[in-house]
Amino acid sequence: MTNFSKEVMHVGEMASGAKLTVPVYRLKGSDATAPSVYIQANMHGAEVQGNAVILQMLELLKATDLKGDITLVPYANPVGCNHKNGEYTLGRFDPITGVNWNRMFHFNEAAIAPFVATHLDSNIATIEQAFSELMLADIDQLLDHNIYGLTTGQRIAYQLQRLAHQADLVLDLHTGPISSKHLYCPEYARESASYFDIPHTLLIPNDFDGALDESTFCPWWTLQEQFAKHGRSFKIKKESFTVELGSQEQIDLDVALDDAKGILSYLQYKGVINQAQYQPKEMLRYACYLKDYKAFYSPMGGMVDYLAEFGQPLPAGEPLARILRMDNYGDGDPLHYISLDHEVIPILHFASASVNQGTELYKVFSKFSLL
Amino acid sequence: MTNFSKEVMHVGEMASGAKLTVPVYRLKGSDATAPSVYIQANMHGAEVQGNAVILQMLELLKATDLKGDITLVPYANPVGCNHKNGEYTLGRFDPITGVNWNRMFHFNEAAIAPFVATHLDSNIATIEQAFSELMLADIDQLLDHNIYGLTTGQRIAYQLQRLAHQADLVLDLHTGPISSKHLYCPEYARESASYFDIPHTLLIPNDFDGALDESTFCPWWTLQEQFAKHGRSFKIKKESFTVELGSQEQIDLDVALDDAKGILSYLQYKGVINQAQYQPKEMLRYACYLKDYKAFYSPMGGMVDYLAEFGQPLPAGEPLARILRMDNYGDGDPLHYISLDHEVIPILHFASASVNQGTELYKVFSKFSLL
Amino acid sequence: MTNFSKEVMHVGEMASGAKLTVPVYRLKGSDATAPSVYIQANMHGAEVQGNAVILQMLELLKATDLKGDITLVPYANPVGCNHKNGEYTLGRFDPITGVNWNRMFHFNEAAIAPFVATHLDSNIATIEQAFSELMLADIDQLLDHNIYGLTTGQRIAYQLQRLAHQADLVLDLHTGPISSKHLYCPEYARESASYFDIPHTLLIPNDFDGALDESTFCPWWTLQEQFAKHGRSFKIKKESFTVELGSQEQIDLDVALDDAKGILSYLQYKGVINQAQYQPKEMLRYACYLKDYKAFYSPMGGMVDYLAEFGQPLPAGEPLARILRMDNYGDGDPLHYISLDHEVIPILHFASASVNQGTELYKVFSKFSLL
Amino acid sequence: MTNFSKEVMHVGEMASGAKLTVPVYRLKGSDATAPSVYIQANMHGAEVQGNAVILQMLELLKATDLKGDITLVPYANPVGCNHKNGEYTLGRFDPITGVNWNRMFHFNEAAIAPFVATHLDSNIATIEQAFSELMLADIDQLLDHNIYGLTTGQRIAYQLQRLAHQADLVLDLHTGPISSKHLYCPEYARESASYFDIPHTLLIPNDFDGALDESTFCPWWTLQEQFAKHGRSFKIKKESFTVELGSQEQIDLDVALDDAKGILSYLQYKGVINQAQYQPKEMLRYACYLKDYKAFYSPMGGMVDYLAEFGQPLPAGEPLARILRMDNYGDGDPLHYISLDHEVIPILHFASASVNQGTELYKVFSKFSLL
Repeated sequence: MTNFSKEVMHVGEMASGAKLTVPVYRLKGSDATAPSVYIQANMHGAEVQGNAVILQMLELLKATDLKGDITLVPYANPVGCNHKNGEYTLGRFDPITGVNWNRMFHFNEAAIAPFVATHLDSNIATIEQAFSELMLADIDQLLDHNIYGLTTGQRIAYQLQRLAHQADLVLDLHTGPISSKHLYCPEYARESASYFDIPHTLLIPNDFDGALDESTFCPWWTLQEQFAKHGRSFKIKKESFTVELGSQEQIDLDVALDDAKGILSYLQYKGVINQAQYQPKEMLRYACYLKDYKAFYSPMGGMVDYLAEFGQPLPAGEPLARILRMDNYGDGDPLHYISLDHEVIPILHFASASVNQGTELYKVFSKFSLL
Repeated sequence: MTNFSKEVMHVGEMASGAKLTVPVYRLKGSDATAPSVYIQANMHGAEVQGNAVILQMLELLKATDLKGDITLVPYANPVGCNHKNGEYTLGRFDPITGVNWNRMFHFNEAAIAPFVATHLDSNIATIEQAFSELMLADIDQLLDHNIYGLTTGQRIAYQLQRLAHQADLVLDLHTGPISSKHLYCPEYARESASYFDIPHTLLIPNDFDGALDESTFCPWWTLQEQFAKHGRSFKIKKESFTVELGSQEQIDLDVALDDAKGILSYLQYKGVINQAQYQPKEMLRYACYLKDYKAFYSPMGGMVDYLAEFGQPLPAGEPLARILRMDNYGDGDPLHYISLDHEVIPILHFASASVNQGTELYKVFSKFSLL
Repeated sequence: MTNFSKEVMHVGEMASGAKLTVPVYRLKGSDATAPSVYIQANMHGAEVQGNAVILQMLELLKATDLKGDITLVPYANPVGCNHKNGEYTLGRFDPITGVNWNRMFHFNEAAIAPFVATHLDSNIATIEQAFSELMLADIDQLLDHNIYGLTTGQRIAYQLQRLAHQADLVLDLHTGPISSKHLYCPEYARESASYFDIPHTLLIPNDFDGALDESTFCPWWTLQEQFAKHGRSFKIKKESFTVELGSQEQIDLDVALDDAKGILSYLQYKGVINQAQYQPKEMLRYACYLKDYKAFYSPMGGMVDYLAEFGQPLPAGEPLARILRMDNYGDGDPLHYISLDHEVIPILHFASASVNQGTELYKVFSKFSLL
Repeated sequence: MTNFSKEVMHVGEMASGAKLTVPVYRLKGSDATAPSVYIQANMHGAEVQGNAVILQMLELLKATDLKGDITLVPYANPVGCNHKNGEYTLGRFDPITGVNWNRMFHFNEAAIAPFVATHLDSNIATIEQAFSELMLADIDQLLDHNIYGLTTGQRIAYQLQRLAHQADLVLDLHTGPISSKHLYCPEYARESASYFDIPHTLLIPNDFDGALDESTFCPWWTLQEQFAKHGRSFKIKKESFTVELGSQEQIDLDVALDDAKGILSYLQYKGVINQAQYQPKEMLRYACYLKDYKAFYSPMGGMVDYLAEFGQPLPAGEPLARILRMDNYGDGDPLHYISLDHEVIPILHFASASVNQGTELYKVFSKFSLL
């Protein structure tokens, strides 16, 4: 039976002096050569289901042959988790600055070229070790040596990133607003996407936009590309995914058990665990490049009856939604139907019926293929 | 075929000078002696489904033999409707003052006794007419003659109340957060509750707490009671209900059609329309006195997996919910089950999985009977 | 030199499990017969200056001959203190329910008459002791014996009230939005108001509306009234004040030192301390009955240039403010001047230039006299 | 006497169907060769003082010899202006998406090189005309031809930008939170900065970050740079500034009159008006490069007594602020002083006393020179 240790990480403090803390669970694997794993949940306040997945993973791992180390961090963002306004949980962006909590991670691209220059002839193990240390030193530098200080979100993000840098495999558990399950996967790790029980995969390029997944795979991918420029091939061990578990503002422990098993299937594939019953489910899996993942913005203000089913190709011309505009009744059109002129797969829609002109109504795979 | 007229009512203005307006639809009945009706929707920003019900009613009424006048007001609260913070619609209370928009209506109980004293010997028609005029004059006085002014919410509420005072039957269309359908019904109108297609009825006493329904039936009920003290029996024609249509933040036009038919069933019963196909559905109907309608507050902070099914009696000891507390994993209990020691009917629960200690988790019928 | 002890009181927990705590400082006086004191600050999130006053009091009390016990509670509301949305601190009402945090205290008026009936012949000391115990038992009952639970705000309020019930003198440190200093004082304690260095006093009646001051003096005042009905005179020792220290969202440690000295002047007068240098300042002191303390609501939406000086009588017809309405430029009046037809003393105004029609612009003494 | 025309521009609609409108004032100059001007205010909801400046400009321009055309847009952001939560105006970022309203303007850098390639031999007038048309066509394309639509903020921004593109001189009137007056000025227009009555100038490079000023000068500056690469010198007529008028949440019509005169001094310098009395005031003017404009983030949570005076060099080691931490009283340090190890000029500080660890406390010129 697997044992775990538990720590409480301090990541900030509030105006009253209240400490912001994050629980960190660590499981020790039996094989130092097996990949290590970092999993966090609830970076956005309303996206809570990942916490339940972590609970179910901890329960399942009790009876699992664990090879690699696993670090699990629920409630990763203690400001976001508790950020209420009205009945709902805001927590998508810092309430003071408006910055998305998952856009504050760090990647210093300028550090890669000099590193490559000094390691052109190093062996793989040396490179991996030295590069890991560079990434960690870079974060430590930010956390500890800045007289002008860090933002609230950077302080949280960098401490999480420090943990994530120490793992080979990184999973950031999110949810959409009202959403089907989908996966953000770097293009180079496409093969791994089939081992999750998630039918929709977004293939993302090597562009850094501040998210945790990018902040942990972009350095390695860039390293690979820089070595390639020098004619040296370098296989990346690091994989980072953002796992979108479904809809926000919901906890469902039964669904969480399924989600946990899907993650264990991926960990089995990667050799983190040795437990053959965890295998991917048979399902149709679709892939879409990030550039083809389109947001559809409402062409009008109104109140929306969302019609399109998630996850299935929707033929051109079929309605995504109809928008109620009672103020038009009698002298206009009280119902407006929305459709597109090409086939799409609807992945998620806005959390509320009430939308302004320009509110993001749907996100869809506008082009897609089988994974 | 029924015709309607449409007006735009000005109810306030914002800091930029933007006008706050409310559309008002009026349908003229063929029989001046038939009861008149006032229906409004969306007094709370997130409770949008009533707007769709008004659309469906207008459509159904096109082919209906209309006896009484009907006034329909969607988007009754133009501040609340558009009050976003994050993806959700707040709009339950004034963002500046925190006051619930549906607690600002008016009832001046002190005006009743003098009225009764001067009408002890008047006939019913005279009393009804004079009392209606008194109610309207009272509202007009508030709206027009106050050098210190009115709050934003009073100005909106009083203008709506002025319309509601002019009708015999008043329906205020609301929703719960995540909720089954239920009806707030004054105790004296219990019989009417069976004509709506709503399985759960709350019987409310003659206590004024600022809501529209109370503000329109309390005066008449108090009038009746005061006449009764003088030995005169007086049957109230006025009926006011708050109709809770289900969950907030959702528009479903198909469900709205059913809801509209349920309301027409009530209007058929009251003689507002003459269209025999609108009859109440057969269903088990439960009643609960308001004092027995209990809010259950979370005994702890945490993230909630809501378990209890709405609308069905839940036996004593059966779980309402389980609360996840991942921070307790390893040194406490990560799951806490909630139950009660007596049978209840769960009616609604909180809109979010994330709750603080003391957040209202559920509202339940703690005692109930068949209607 | 005075010593103090410090505790941390748990008053709730958030969704992530984070504990809500409040620091409690206790100073022990040398004379058990001297009045005891309870002072809290920051019940509303933005009203922070009271925390600085508590700091300065603790510093001043180091060199003070202390007779009575003093309990000091800064950061009394740990949810409100940390409730940000945008740059400002909200924290005036529960973000989930909209209820004002200072309207959740408890007073069970029905308990007084039975108490009086059983103590008609008791001596004063017995009555005071027994009544204190009754108040505490009532609160303990609420906190500990309610299967349906308490709201978040009640749990905080009742725990503070439990401390306040144990003191003879209660000060609740608040601020206005943008405001002069003023004092809420029960009518019976009018004489004490002259000992604070506060030029404006509101005399409030024995009406309970949920605030801490009322929740601690209303029981005693009602007790006095009930004894009076039975022909027994009973002098109240309990005094409770809400002290409005100026404007919110500001900390000024120098002003706080003055405020602390003003409070010590009152404590010297009551015999809590024995330090003759703390005497009230000479100043013109105005009094106004609560019924004459009027809110002026903006007659229009717009952006306000506040003109009237605080604290001085403003003659009839002199402008309180002018409201900018640029959208009217060219086809209306871009500036609207606000005045009243009678003399008033402006006490506070709204925190922002931007107001809706019906926003509370000013609060004024509409009738007043010298204290 | 100058005449103006007034339009109402539709920029969006809300969930209830309410139209979002912006008033546009246009003054016609007498000289078609004089530079034209675009001035907007209140892009961020709380930054209202610019509206008053526009009022005072309109009043002053009545008696001004106007050569160039002027377009004036108060209340530029009708969502932001009216976005209240609590007493304050949020309106800095879209409440739904968290995106800063002044980061949604457009600049398509990729369009410049092809334009230059086709106009290497064109004359200046042709280039200016053709480039203006390109900029406008680009915006029109975005507004009208996008099946997936625009965000709420883009729709507002692009319509404002269309107006700004048509002017030679662009002023965007903002304010800081609690702030001294300062000016964002592109490095190439440094000379113009002396004509405003603003003592602190930030010199900004040719980097586009989404703000209106950048979106209007970056295209021209880039055009200049691209022509320079081809050996052709090209003097930019376009100048765009963000004018920070002082503190937010305040209207002061007297200060606005001064601000309006300062702007007229700049317009006199540029030949837009011919009214010699408008001359810059004598004052010490400081300049700082944007890279040296530093935000200082709070090293701890707490409540801040801001000490440093705005606008004056603060010697190394002198306190910027002291932070109160009452919870540390007795077992820590209740007051923490903040200072820097080098001289700075404090320009603005946070709007509230309550800060989290990592909240932006101050912005300062960390290196500076005379303008």
